[in-house]
Amino acid sequence: MSSAKKQRTHPQYELLYWPGIPGRGEYIRLAFEASGVPFKDTGNEAKNGASIVVSACCDKNSTGDSDGNPPSFAPPGLRVPGEGKDGKTLFISQTPNILLYLGPKLGLAGEDEVDALYVNSLTLTALDLSNETHDTHHPVASMLYYEDQKEESLKKATDFRENRIPKFFGYFERVLKGNEKKGGEGKYMVGPKLTYADTTLWQVLDGLHFAFPNECKARSSEFPVLQKFYQNMKEEKGLKEYIESGRRLEFSNGLFRHYPELDRQEK
Amino acid sequence: MSSAKKQRTHPQYELLYWPGIPGRGEYIRLAFEASGVPFKDTGNEAKNGASIVVSACCDKNSTGDSDGNPPSFAPPGLRVPGEGKDGKTLFISQTPNILLYLGPKLGLAGEDEVDALYVNSLTLTALDLSNETHDTHHPVASMLYYEDQKEESLKKATDFRENRIPKFFGYFERVLKGNEKKGGEGKYMVGPKLTYADTTLWQVLDGLHFAFPNECKARSSEFPVLQKFYQNMKEEKGLKEYIESGRRLEFSNGLFRHYPELDRQEK
Repeated sequence: MSSAKKQRTHPQYELLYWPGIPGRGEYIRLAFEASGVPFKDTGNEAKNGASIVVSACCDKNSTGDSDGNPPSFAPPGLRVPGEGKDGKTLFISQTPNILLYLGPKLGLAGEDEVDALYVNSLTLTALDLSNETHDTHHPVASMLYYEDQKEESLKKATDFRENRIPKFFGYFERVLKGNEKKGGEGKYMVGPKLTYADTTLWQVLDGLHFAFPNECKARSSEFPVLQKFYQNMKEEKGLKEYIESGRRLEFSNGLFRHYPELDRQEK
Repeated sequence: MSSAKKQRTHPQYELLYWPGIPGRGEYIRLAFEASGVPFKDTGNEAKNGASIVVSACCDKNSTGDSDGNPPSFAPPGLRVPGEGKDGKTLFISQTPNILLYLGPKLGLAGEDEVDALYVNSLTLTALDLSNETHDTHHPVASMLYYEDQKEESLKKATDFRENRIPKFFGYFERVLKGNEKKGGEGKYMVGPKLTYADTTLWQVLDGLHFAFPNECKARSSEFPVLQKFYQNMKEEKGLKEYIESGRRLEFSNGLFRHYPELDRQEK
């Protein structure tokens, strides 16, 4: 189905997230890109994108919006006209909640309700890994500079590389293996089709390859199925086009950061 | 409806979580207790509870169970006979995923699908606060002792008390206020009825009152609606009986820990 046709069968989804960085917004963008459903990326597309995001997602005085939606704690947010209470505009926040909502609508939540539960669980675990990665460069306070918590970051990153990465990678390796016989072929985590658990895990892996290139390289032979999953995903319809389009935002100083001193040191 | 009657209309839910501590299992227990639906708490009830939990929730070799469920990363897990693929046993993990599944079945997910999204979002935010509380005593590595990361904990806890607690408390205060006119009366966060977002937030607040009693006391007048919510919830049907029963596990050395040096210092 063409993009224009898909637009007609979907409401105008609007993502609200900080401009210029992939961050948590990218988990939502990937779901749209993988399914070919258009969406508005207001933070990046509007002139005053950042201030619209602040007002929608982090207004410290808001007790909810005029459509009856409760206030949001932090970006990302998703706005969907006509899908809220009494046909008003729906506004929801929290990355896994937005993905949970979009999943079935974008055909990325597996084949039935049981699959959808697996997909949600695996996404939550991938996002836990995403959060732990953030904490390697901000172990003490998210509002302080990295430079002011560098010593603690060195300790946190060591534990992360030595204990947490192998624990998470080993887990996803087993999930992929277990799903091989259900048609996943090492390419998908739930059943024989792409889900938003796959796109989310892939983004986390890509961020880790940016932040900890030495560590990921050294670990690649330990987790061969996961490594293949990471490579294969780049060929997936929708994602391939997105990567090649140049529209995908580059990692820089967001969730995933490359500080060479936090990575595995070459011997 | 009596407990025996409720049992007949529900499958035999089984919670798998570490024995002896409330931890993340308590978020699930509270949903059952608030709705009066019986469940099996295998970790605490079985003789070899801990080893059953390990084998179901953290088997490092598992690629999934014989019912076709993917492997679990960590407790809690929920087992539901007959509700999986082809009428097999369903097994799911991840606290917010388990609550999402149980919510509508226990009557704790609001009045419609939009409410259910709000409830999930608020629960995820309450659980983020729960995770951040854990990190105050384990900022460097979850596998190390507190004593080995005490210096970093002092810094982390200071930021948590000064910046994160007011940010989260302020947010939930506004959520409660915004829902007052929708029948919440300051008692509920979504609509006019108890949801699992309420029980989850209440457990986090109770844990914070245990871990940071001085800080919570000093902040209580800043967030009067939240403070009232915290007190009111103890009178809620199901929860009141649970609290009075003595069955509720006490906080000790789990997610929420009381280290006086991490709390606000009295002047």
